[in-house]
Amino acid sequence: MGPTDRSAFPRKLDLRHGRVDLSHGGGGKAMAQLVEEMFGAAFDNPLLAQRNDQAVFDAPVGRLAVTTDSYVISPLFFPGGDIGSLAVHGTVNDLAMAGAVPLYLTAGFIIEEGFPLGDLGRIVASMAAAAREAGVSIITGDTKVVERGKGDGVFINTTGIGVTRPGVAPSGDRARPGDAVLVSGFVGDHGVAIMSTRENLSFETAIASDSAALHGLVAAMVEAVPDIHTLRDPTRGGVATTLNEIARQSGVGMVLDERAIPIREEVAAACELLGLDPLHVANEGKLIAICAAGDAVRLLDAMRGHPLGADAAVIGEVIDDDHRFVQLRTAFGGKRIVDWLAGEQLPRIC
Amino acid sequence: MGPTDRSAFPRKLDLRHGRVDLSHGGGGKAMAQLVEEMFGAAFDNPLLAQRNDQAVFDAPVGRLAVTTDSYVISPLFFPGGDIGSLAVHGTVNDLAMAGAVPLYLTAGFIIEEGFPLGDLGRIVASMAAAAREAGVSIITGDTKVVERGKGDGVFINTTGIGVTRPGVAPSGDRARPGDAVLVSGFVGDHGVAIMSTRENLSFETAIASDSAALHGLVAAMVEAVPDIHTLRDPTRGGVATTLNEIARQSGVGMVLDERAIPIREEVAAACELLGLDPLHVANEGKLIAICAAGDAVRLLDAMRGHPLGADAAVIGEVIDDDHRFVQLRTAFGGKRIVDWLAGEQLPRIC
Repeated sequence: MGPTDRSAFPRKLDLRHGRVDLSHGGGGKAMAQLVEEMFGAAFDNPLLAQRNDQAVFDAPVGRLAVTTDSYVISPLFFPGGDIGSLAVHGTVNDLAMAGAVPLYLTAGFIIEEGFPLGDLGRIVASMAAAAREAGVSIITGDTKVVERGKGDGVFINTTGIGVTRPGVAPSGDRARPGDAVLVSGFVGDHGVAIMSTRENLSFETAIASDSAALHGLVAAMVEAVPDIHTLRDPTRGGVATTLNEIARQSGVGMVLDERAIPIREEVAAACELLGLDPLHVANEGKLIAICAAGDAVRLLDAMRGHPLGADAAVIGEVIDDDHRFVQLRTAFGGKRIVDWLAGEQLPRIC
Repeated sequence: MGPTDRSAFPRKLDLRHGRVDLSHGGGGKAMAQLVEEMFGAAFDNPLLAQRNDQAVFDAPVGRLAVTTDSYVISPLFFPGGDIGSLAVHGTVNDLAMAGAVPLYLTAGFIIEEGFPLGDLGRIVASMAAAAREAGVSIITGDTKVVERGKGDGVFINTTGIGVTRPGVAPSGDRARPGDAVLVSGFVGDHGVAIMSTRENLSFETAIASDSAALHGLVAAMVEAVPDIHTLRDPTRGGVATTLNEIARQSGVGMVLDERAIPIREEVAAACELLGLDPLHVANEGKLIAICAAGDAVRLLDAMRGHPLGADAAVIGEVIDDDHRFVQLRTAFGGKRIVDWLAGEQLPRIC
């Protein structure tokens, strides 16, 4: 940008006292300034610098994975992260669950009129840091502003593009009777961390969200066991819902061992207090893996060798079951059905 | 899906009386039903049918174009379209403006609690029809629900992926002094159509939005003139802002001929009534093209040969100008500066 451009925006964005107003979504000069001084500066990369309404790049060779997620989490800032880092981690993880290497993200912001520019700046900085750490570039974006009372602070959509690895094709329909079911670590941290911040909930906990990008863990896993049958991150609806989805897609049942499922004491206590099943509580830095029984030990070793899989465990097995039930062998030796999350446990967990 | 699945959702979605509630975004069974019976049924295609959190497909050969847009238009239904068709057209057009062939869309919905399922169904059907007509597949999606008063009916993000044509590389930084500036038809229809529906505006007009997918028009144009320098759709901020963006990116000025710019009488009248410059009013089915002067006649002929370019016109030329001004030679022979849209003309126009 040449010297003439500097005069295009006579004053810099006021990050201390400024607020987003409708002109920031109007397509005119105020929006150009927001995009340039905030998004452009934080996400800086050659594709974004094309400054067109789209990014153009050479197609990677192979099979592409594409995923989209809108993030509406409340509150925007929480122990262990914020909507910006979450919007990167969540979408990177959906790519990783296809066994893909994440490459690019797009970012769409829907901002409520009156939102402090400083808070937006913190979110954007966190998003940029998460993207850098995950090795992905935010290559194009969009900004909309809605009137006060027609949104809630900020919503972010990220769409991710990655490239799959040859011979690696995990999918929800590939779980087979006899397969082992693994989880990468403690269950329920994210949901409990968010609940602890909600005003109308009367407990406090030191639990932080587990929000993290899992593509590095997946890289270690597929190197050890390329033929992982299924990978999925148990976000909304928790481990219980994710396993039921897989059971349904694959046409199988599952039996889990309650004692094998890693749950922190504080999470278990909070769930008991709130009358929740930790298996229904959302995670943002955990994954479920399903593989042939003969691969399970090797996969578990690979997971435990990675910082984000240190507490990984084999938690059950896939069985033949026309009903596609997910069952839990309880600590007392009984069995119960682990159902989908039925109603709504906690709105806007992600 | 086998017979066992039918029992998964005991009752079908009630499109007549049902409303979206928080459970439809909870990640559990209610969400699975909404995704399956509404989105899955309307958008049906083999990639979406993978039913994973991401779609996986062979990378097209060549250069990819990627674009993202969130749609927050109000009202959701308007003369000439609705948020569903707009969310397809707008994103297809951003791909087309890179000279790309649009291939895939993702769809992210943020729905306000209490939104009628029937209205959502109409929007989804319109989106599906627009996608079919444009020859693009909606391959993966996401559904979030926010509490009443924290959103406004429905917001939709679509991210588009296309493949560029070899030798075709229009970009905002390629306008050169001497180039011709063309517009594909009447200016300002979309904005005026939306304004006419706003309750607090006291005029009526027969003008419908020009919302349309422009990739077919672009195909005809690049066949005639592969070396189009710049293509951009003048949406938010209108023709004036789009030309200023291009002038800034390319480091040039422009002179437009007021009499050459196609504006409908009703649009001009409505703008006069509202004190607006039609050049600041949004379009959703028009494009600006810039090409070498020697290519202009061939390009204009190609545009006029396509139904969406029947009223195309050469409206000005690119000049050398350190100030990067866009100027207008008025009908009376004077000259005035055509500036960026400064404040906010009409919130939520797209």
